Amino acid sequence: MRVAIVGASGAVGQELLRILAERDFPVDDLVLFGSARSAGRKYNFKGKDYEVRLLQHNDDFKGVDIAFTSAGGDTSEVFAETITKHGAIMIDNSSAFRMCDDVPLVVPEVNAEDALNCPRRIIANPNCTTIMMVVVMKPIERLSHIRKIHIASYQSASGAGAAAMQELEQQYKELVEEGRVKTINKFSHQLAYNVIPQIDKMTPNDYTKEEMKMFNETRKIMHSDVRTSATCVRISSLRSHSESVWFETEEPISVESIRKALAAAPGVTLVDDPQHYVYPMPLDSAGKDDIYVGRVRKDLADDNSNTLWLTGDQIRKGAALNAVQIAEYLNTHRKD
Amino acid sequence: MRVAIVGASGAVGQELLRILAERDFPVDDLVLFGSARSAGRKYNFKGKDYEVRLLQHNDDFKGVDIAFTSAGGDTSEVFAETITKHGAIMIDNSSAFRMCDDVPLVVPEVNAEDALNCPRRIIANPNCTTIMMVVVMKPIERLSHIRKIHIASYQSASGAGAAAMQELEQQYKELVEEGRVKTINKFSHQLAYNVIPQIDKMTPNDYTKEEMKMFNETRKIMHSDVRTSATCVRISSLRSHSESVWFETEEPISVESIRKALAAAPGVTLVDDPQHYVYPMPLDSAGKDDIYVGRVRKDLADDNSNTLWLTGDQIRKGAALNAVQIAEYLNTHRKD
Repeated sequence: MRVAIVGASGAVGQELLRILAERDFPVDDLVLFGSARSAGRKYNFKGKDYEVRLLQHNDDFKGVDIAFTSAGGDTSEVFAETITKHGAIMIDNSSAFRMCDDVPLVVPEVNAEDALNCPRRIIANPNCTTIMMVVVMKPIERLSHIRKIHIASYQSASGAGAAAMQELEQQYKELVEEGRVKTINKFSHQLAYNVIPQIDKMTPNDYTKEEMKMFNETRKIMHSDVRTSATCVRISSLRSHSESVWFETEEPISVESIRKALAAAPGVTLVDDPQHYVYPMPLDSAGKDDIYVGRVRKDLADDNSNTLWLTGDQIRKGAALNAVQIAEYLNTHRKD
Repeated sequence: MRVAIVGASGAVGQELLRILAERDFPVDDLVLFGSARSAGRKYNFKGKDYEVRLLQHNDDFKGVDIAFTSAGGDTSEVFAETITKHGAIMIDNSSAFRMCDDVPLVVPEVNAEDALNCPRRIIANPNCTTIMMVVVMKPIERLSHIRKIHIASYQSASGAGAAAMQELEQQYKELVEEGRVKTINKFSHQLAYNVIPQIDKMTPNDYTKEEMKMFNETRKIMHSDVRTSATCVRISSLRSHSESVWFETEEPISVESIRKALAAAPGVTLVDDPQHYVYPMPLDSAGKDDIYVGRVRKDLADDNSNTLWLTGDQIRKGAALNAVQIAEYLNTHRKD
């Protein structure tokens, strides 16, 4: 297969290169694209160097089978036609097309088959916090329909890109060496030793875009009327997001049945022995594929609800890995 | 008044000294007590030095009117009789007596009058995360009865004491200077760049003690059947805790009525203009008296619920300030 990566120099682009190699995705040829800033850089893939080309409106995508795009929503919108016009399938990591009726929004563990119906040859990769949550909610939905989800997130700096992660490290360096933070560019406030209860822009209902993605994308992926209320919060960790989740089901379900379903679920690892200080933490899940779940217990406030804690690497399963898994599914199930 | 502080060298003891001076509490004489480790240390209060005495079973509390105790639950239990037997009122910051029927559990903005009925001359100061939450919930309870609360906390290192805060700073110093963390004593895991979803020991129902305090203490303070389900999480900030809170009321109430009630509530400051990146954050609330509230909005998952974000200094309002406010209330309302 001829594979393209648009946004090859970014945090997700770099992770895509690693994951395609790790999983031995059948890449016969690779083409890397980027902005004027990154064009000309070279990246190694399985022992061979590939140079980043400038993304332009031309016939560069002729012969490409799968194009992974991760260069922001504007780039995806502007170049979708250029990328797909010769037959390439675009697996898009941006939010540009996620809620379009004619674009499937896919998490392979949840709704892989939706990927086969993509009339525009665009398949959208969901928002990272949503992917992590639905992978865990799907096996529970099979026990009883989930009606409501409440979620508070603990999101790492790298969710805002590699430069944001470097800024956080720089802030702690300044604190240790000079006693105060001087560098505040990527976030609206100092993040070191702080917590910022806003991720992405505000929408008119006073939820942020990130929070509304969790509401809307979860319904689309799960084919469900579930109502999600999220508070998305940036904390001073580097990689991996965590989520505290309460979920109300139509019928009451036992903690044991939830644990059993999660232990058997693809893409999920149960790490739940808090009596011995064992539970998922971002430091442990960074660089791993699965979503880690622990602290599973009854909701003390509601008889039909339960609660749990999850952590996952938002650059892997939350972005690059999920995109590659979509491509793998297409590769084995698509008939053209 | 003759005032005693037990645990004078601790984070809360030191804050008590500052707050008693700041608020010009009518202290005629001050006696400081501590363990063998801190006995002999001197602390200045309004220009005069006071030496920490060793806490012992003797008549040292004769003539003391108010004793603030903040040296852990074991010390409070063992010394309660010694402290109160000559008539002193003990305002106890530990969890030892909080749930005793004959000990009032008091947050002055919520249930000040309960302080007047203390047959054992012990008044309990609630858990920090609970104090912060009930100060904000009480004005909303007046609009419509709160039935359920869901809460995810973001708790600072200093909640585990001054040494825990220093350990977090040491961890970042080691990361900057040596690239890895070597010091892990106060917490069960590295806290720098991490999140630990456990605070205090586990209980048999798989909630932590900290989480069960939020359930039980909230009901006692608010004289309410409210059911609270909490997930309490340690994050890498130094001071001030934050909480993401959803609350279901008997009748639906509007965001505007909530904002109005909170703006008028004692001990609460509304900081709610997220369209301009304005919301409460731990860095801003550290060292302040009020609980700061923002991100007030409808709960998208439930028609009778709303949600908000709050931050407050857990050493001040969450501990020392609340204790001093109880003493002030007794001073103006007690008839003996």
